Amino acid sequence: MAVKAQVLYDFSAEPGNNELTVKEGETVTITNQSIGGGWIEAQNSRGEVGLVPEDYIEHDLTLSIHLLQTRLDSPLSLSLSLSPYLMRHFSSSFVPHIFSFHLFQASNGNDPWSVWNADPSGGTNNNWASNPEGTQTGKSAADPWGSISQGHPQAYQGPGAEDDEWDDEWDDMKSTGGYAESESGESGAMQRGGAHASSMKISLNKFPGFSKSGPELYLLCKQLPKGKEKLPIYLGEVGPVWSYPESQLDCVVADPKKGSKMYGLKSYIEYQITPNTTNRPVNHRYKHFDWLYERLLDKFGSAIPIPSLPDKQVTGRFEEEFIKMRMERLQGWMTRMCRHPVVSGSEVFQIFLTYKDEKDWKTGKRKAEKDETVGVMIFSTIEPEAPDLDPVEVEQKCEQFSKFTKAMDDGVKEILTVGQEHWKRCTGPLPKEYQRIGKAFQNLSSVFTSSGYQGESTLTDAMTAAGKTYEEIAQMVAEQPKKDLHFLMETNNEYKGLLGCFPDTIGVHKAAIDKVKEADKLVATSKITPQDKGTMAKRVSTMSYTLQAEMNHFHSNRIYDYNRVMQLYLEEQVKFYETVSSTSIFLLTLHSFPSL
Amino acid sequence: MAVKAQVLYDFSAEPGNNELTVKEGETVTITNQSIGGGWIEAQNSRGEVGLVPEDYIEHDLTLSIHLLQTRLDSPLSLSLSLSPYLMRHFSSSFVPHIFSFHLFQASNGNDPWSVWNADPSGGTNNNWASNPEGTQTGKSAADPWGSISQGHPQAYQGPGAEDDEWDDEWDDMKSTGGYAESESGESGAMQRGGAHASSMKISLNKFPGFSKSGPELYLLCKQLPKGKEKLPIYLGEVGPVWSYPESQLDCVVADPKKGSKMYGLKSYIEYQITPNTTNRPVNHRYKHFDWLYERLLDKFGSAIPIPSLPDKQVTGRFEEEFIKMRMERLQGWMTRMCRHPVVSGSEVFQIFLTYKDEKDWKTGKRKAEKDETVGVMIFSTIEPEAPDLDPVEVEQKCEQFSKFTKAMDDGVKEILTVGQEHWKRCTGPLPKEYQRIGKAFQNLSSVFTSSGYQGESTLTDAMTAAGKTYEEIAQMVAEQPKKDLHFLMETNNEYKGLLGCFPDTIGVHKAAIDKVKEADKLVATSKITPQDKGTMAKRVSTMSYTLQAEMNHFHSNRIYDYNRVMQLYLEEQVKFYETVSSTSIFLLTLHSFPSL
Repeated sequence: MAVKAQVLYDFSAEPGNNELTVKEGETVTITNQSIGGGWIEAQNSRGEVGLVPEDYIEHDLTLSIHLLQTRLDSPLSLSLSLSPYLMRHFSSSFVPHIFSFHLFQASNGNDPWSVWNADPSGGTNNNWASNPEGTQTGKSAADPWGSISQGHPQAYQGPGAEDDEWDDEWDDMKSTGGYAESESGESGAMQRGGAHASSMKISLNKFPGFSKSGPELYLLCKQLPKGKEKLPIYLGEVGPVWSYPESQLDCVVADPKKGSKMYGLKSYIEYQITPNTTNRPVNHRYKHFDWLYERLLDKFGSAIPIPSLPDKQVTGRFEEEFIKMRMERLQGWMTRMCRHPVVSGSEVFQIFLTYKDEKDWKTGKRKAEKDETVGVMIFSTIEPEAPDLDPVEVEQKCEQFSKFTKAMDDGVKEILTVGQEHWKRCTGPLPKEYQRIGKAFQNLSSVFTSSGYQGESTLTDAMTAAGKTYEEIAQMVAEQPKKDLHFLMETNNEYKGLLGCFPDTIGVHKAAIDKVKEADKLVATSKITPQDKGTMAKRVSTMSYTLQAEMNHFHSNRIYDYNRVMQLYLEEQVKFYETVSSTSIFLLTLHSFPSL
Repeated sequence: MAVKAQVLYDFSAEPGNNELTVKEGETVTITNQSIGGGWIEAQNSRGEVGLVPEDYIEHDLTLSIHLLQTRLDSPLSLSLSLSPYLMRHFSSSFVPHIFSFHLFQASNGNDPWSVWNADPSGGTNNNWASNPEGTQTGKSAADPWGSISQGHPQAYQGPGAEDDEWDDEWDDMKSTGGYAESESGESGAMQRGGAHASSMKISLNKFPGFSKSGPELYLLCKQLPKGKEKLPIYLGEVGPVWSYPESQLDCVVADPKKGSKMYGLKSYIEYQITPNTTNRPVNHRYKHFDWLYERLLDKFGSAIPIPSLPDKQVTGRFEEEFIKMRMERLQGWMTRMCRHPVVSGSEVFQIFLTYKDEKDWKTGKRKAEKDETVGVMIFSTIEPEAPDLDPVEVEQKCEQFSKFTKAMDDGVKEILTVGQEHWKRCTGPLPKEYQRIGKAFQNLSSVFTSSGYQGESTLTDAMTAAGKTYEEIAQMVAEQPKKDLHFLMETNNEYKGLLGCFPDTIGVHKAAIDKVKEADKLVATSKITPQDKGTMAKRVSTMSYTLQAEMNHFHSNRIYDYNRVMQLYLEEQVKFYETVSSTSIFLLTLHSFPSL
């Protein structure tokens, strides 16, 4: 059967990968849906056949969405961007009364913040957050910050695709060079792998979350499941805080080793992860990290921003550089996860770090995949040891966090943009210029030497030394960014990714607040009982404590991280200038010019 | 009478000056020849009328040249570039047997070195200096180094034009901005005023030198005039040297004052020049400096490179900046002239520096203008206290100097090119980037301040301070070139100008050597007597001593100047890096980040 489908986003084929370049709006014929690994085979109107990421194609989505839309009948209109987390967690069994989906009409906007900037009152001005730039920009939704959109999306790997070696990360390895300008050139932001670029993964065609819930599932659930999991929240000095373990979990990602399968036809890289608790290393491939990410997103994404893994296509001109960079970023991701008291304490995270053998790992995986306390139901495990909050206060807090994370996202992006430009200048034109100055001094010096005039060797020696010093300075300038700017960029890049998750997390929160605001109306129309209304208010208070605990966790980490990276950056800058000045002093002392 | 004339070089009109843009090869009609000040009024084929520099128009030249050519009948062909010095000093009364003029056919080449790279043997390879790039490039001859050709030529002001106020330097003032790229963009060299760009002035239409002589006039002169002037050359440690005065003449150019004439309609700037000998200031306008330059060129140009005055169109966005820059360069020019034992001891130079009153000055001027010991006859005043040199040695020395000055010219131009680029980067994109980094830090800091999270003021204070530091660094970076690169550029610019005079000076020398080489042939054809031949050899030896003394003077000055400027440059660079590093240290100390 030839299925026609529309292309949702531009996709540029990578040469030699049997891929097909497609344009947004183009109609293609699906020629093979069972490729796996997040890819399908398609044919364009010119008869060319190749692989396209499933996510970029409308075909299997249209059905679900259209089915969904027929069941939606609400005067309230919430303009939703393609927020993958929300997509997953809106239950199709629980009818989302209050949402109408404009997914493929107006809302392929690229601003994740539009989720909670939308107008909940059906047309009147909302007083929560203004979005003067408009929520729909018509840009590809693949890039939540509108800056990076050329790379592959990370094809979602469901449990069934686990043993499919098609997308082996080793084969996927692509080099894109330093902090080079984004190919899209849209905002000059970086393309260091989409890791931190897209907030959470897009996997529209899988919608695992649709079997679970929107916030209503939790808010209106008659009987909350009574599991073993308990996530207490305390009132600390700074407000609501998670319960932090006495000693912080940490792990070291190291020792990448090349392995192979299928008689050497398929190769991959295995990393060794050693937690400080057991001090016993476990091995994982990139795809296992990806599996972990999916589980954490499913389970905690409603309450905790789970940053994306570093992209498959990390930077690096050479194999070693590529592996080193990926490892560095996997380390960064694991460190962040370890630091989070809820994530690090979860069963799925623990099994990942401490499985004893293959069987243990398989059992753990199966158990994690069957976990039902996912999506908004995570809130059912949260137990704030504090009095219920007034809904007005809940709303105020939410608004505050929304404003802050949006503002910080802007600030971080500004640093990334200017940092990228600085990186380019410091590794390109600037050292080249110092080199040329150095050469020019040396050339003039050797002309002087040829004069035949006696007694100028002191001058020519000094000039040659000055020339060499400038060549040294050139090298120092070119190498400096790796010593300081790199870390500033990595940290901000990580925060860009983290901040990209907040729209989803805060979105769930805001949808719940909206629901509570509607409560009176729902009671009046007998859709819920007055008792339900009370339950909702209590539960939205729990959600607020969760958000506050999470924000406080974010703030304390942010202060730690920025404190560390700013200190490192400035110290290295000072060292640099000191070294340059002492290099020249060295020169002046050693090859002192003839005194005047 | 409507005189038609051909345009020799491209000329771009400056807006608002009633000038007319003309192209090389274009025919124009001369509408007014009595404009004065080196300008004529012309009308192009489109009927547009405007002023064009006389030098750019062929009209009154063609006559003289054609007259000249009818008298020339020699098999020897020396390809001459438009060397103004040589042009002036070929006597039309003494028939220049060995030269045929290709002035307006092939030789409007822009390479001043072509003067002595030409083929003296009438077609066979010359073994003196090779000129692989070819001597005729078809570029405008206005720029001897092929780099600067857009500015006005400095119209020659003969004695008769002295009181013409038309070209008042104040009216002529034009601003062209820092070390901006040359408009012509030909070689990326600088257009800081053509001062050092064109070697010696082009004033084809005046040919005062035609009343004087080529090297033959001196070589074959039956009876050398016996004047009071004596210029001894001694054998010093480094070889032949000028006689240096016990105390070196110096002067200070300062205190520029605006004066006016014609009831304020014409204004000008008068500079105060104070020599260290009298300590009594004299006043001079730019045009007086120009008069002095012309006299020195006439008198010493065969033996001593006389660098051009700073161009009328020096740099400067504002009046003060313009005046300051011109003064600085006039000071540089005067210092160089003072340092030269022959120039500084000359009567014309002394009268310029020490005239007592207007009458004294007028008398001195008249006397200087009547001086007959000009052109190659200056060699008649030179008395080397050393045995005559073998012609082979003379030739070797000449070749050595020619090679050296050409090589140094290349080296200097390289520094100027890279220096100009560095100047642009340091005053443009680089500080802008530091500023943006500073702003980005401060912006993020103020976002952090808005978090509402307690206890982050230490971080935000430190981040704000870091941001401000980067703004300070931006300013330091932008201001640094004025403190160091400026002087490196000025010195090299001055040397570029000086080196541009050598082709003429060495050209005279080489023509003389050629003449001596021909001596046997001339004796054989009875054009000269064997005794004449002996005289020629002796006199060319004197010329060689002169050139050697001049080269030794050049070398010693060069070593002094480069030693000084390189020290200054490096010291300032070190200071800069020290200041930047201590600025950051200051920051770290004062607003120390919270310890980790």
